[in-house]
Amino acid sequence: MAATEIEQLIQILSKLPGLGPRSARRAALHLVKKKEVLLSPLSHALQRVEETVKTCSTCGNLDATDPCTICTDGRRDDSVICVVQDVADLWALERSNSFKGRYHVLGGTLSALDGIGPEDLKIDTLVNRAQSSLVTEVILATSATVDGQTTAHYIADCLENCDVSVSGLAHGVPVGGELDYLDDGTLSAALSARRKME
Amino acid sequence: MAATEIEQLIQILSKLPGLGPRSARRAALHLVKKKEVLLSPLSHALQRVEETVKTCSTCGNLDATDPCTICTDGRRDDSVICVVQDVADLWALERSNSFKGRYHVLGGTLSALDGIGPEDLKIDTLVNRAQSSLVTEVILATSATVDGQTTAHYIADCLENCDVSVSGLAHGVPVGGELDYLDDGTLSAALSARRKME
Ligand SMILES: [Zn+2]
Ligand SMILES: [Zn+2]
Repeated sequence: MAATEIEQLIQILSKLPGLGPRSARRAALHLVKKKEVLLSPLSHALQRVEETVKTCSTCGNLDATDPCTICTDGRRDDSVICVVQDVADLWALERSNSFKGRYHVLGGTLSALDGIGPEDLKIDTLVNRAQSSLVTEVILATSATVDGQTTAHYIADCLENCDVSVSGLAHGVPVGGELDYLDDGTLSAALSARRKME
Repeated sequence: MAATEIEQLIQILSKLPGLGPRSARRAALHLVKKKEVLLSPLSHALQRVEETVKTCSTCGNLDATDPCTICTDGRRDDSVICVVQDVADLWALERSNSFKGRYHVLGGTLSALDGIGPEDLKIDTLVNRAQSSLVTEVILATSATVDGQTTAHYIADCLENCDVSVSGLAHGVPVGGELDYLDDGTLSAALSARRKME
């Protein structure tokens, strides 16, 4: 068997999404063989992330500063908040380069099955932000899944007393599809053809 | 976009075998979200491996000690050396629990295409080891690929003047198959039915 130290590394790597026990073993071996060019840089990158990256207390993005660079960027539009389930979706939208407003990361969707209720998501803070006079529109960019759409409708109800227009992403996002899997063009099209939530 | 620190982490993760840019992003995000239970343990595991793991100067295995625990294990059979291409293959054989001799890691196969010649592999040191009066058999457990079999024949020739019996793994290893992909049973059967190299 491999040395205990390598076994521990394999065990931790196999917990990463996309890496099973076998690919974790390959990855560990690759790291050990490429100590200088891979293992050491990865070790340092992890330490840097551990030390610097925090959750933005305004929007929920992950960044080296709190508030994050998106929240503090003066060139972005304060009047629109785009609500996403996860930081990965925020990144996907940023990569699509089609949105210049602010974001709000929910941290998931409502889910009866997983026992996730409104109190488990950052909905209160969204409502607080939407009450600002600066905000005129909230785009609900949750997934086109049942849970994603249930969440969007729930949030639309919560925002009823705020003076904002509430919209959802246009059809164009494949039904059942997760945002992070889409190409930039589809995301961009779905965003620009967004429709008002009924 | 994500913070520079996270981008750097994603970039390094995407160099691991089995992780593309997209899965590297997922993995990075997962790590950041699970700082205490995943990022920090991974960071420490990497540091431990970086500090402790070295290549065994006898057999080429990776371990915390040099010579490695397999080379120093008094219960193992000194009379048989099993020659493998890579440390991953050594680990696969150890998992199959079917070999109790010593190992020798070549560090690859001869390859005209990749310009890998005999001097790039640990063949000299194998011949040295095979000259010991303790050694009576060398098992060539290279892959059943063209390069693997070419390498096996080349090594068999090099060992001609040593007083050892040279064997290859039995047919049972699928042609074109790499050792590390096989289940333990197949490996075990191929090993016990090993045949003498002509
Ligand atoms: Zn922010
Ligand atoms: Zn050794």
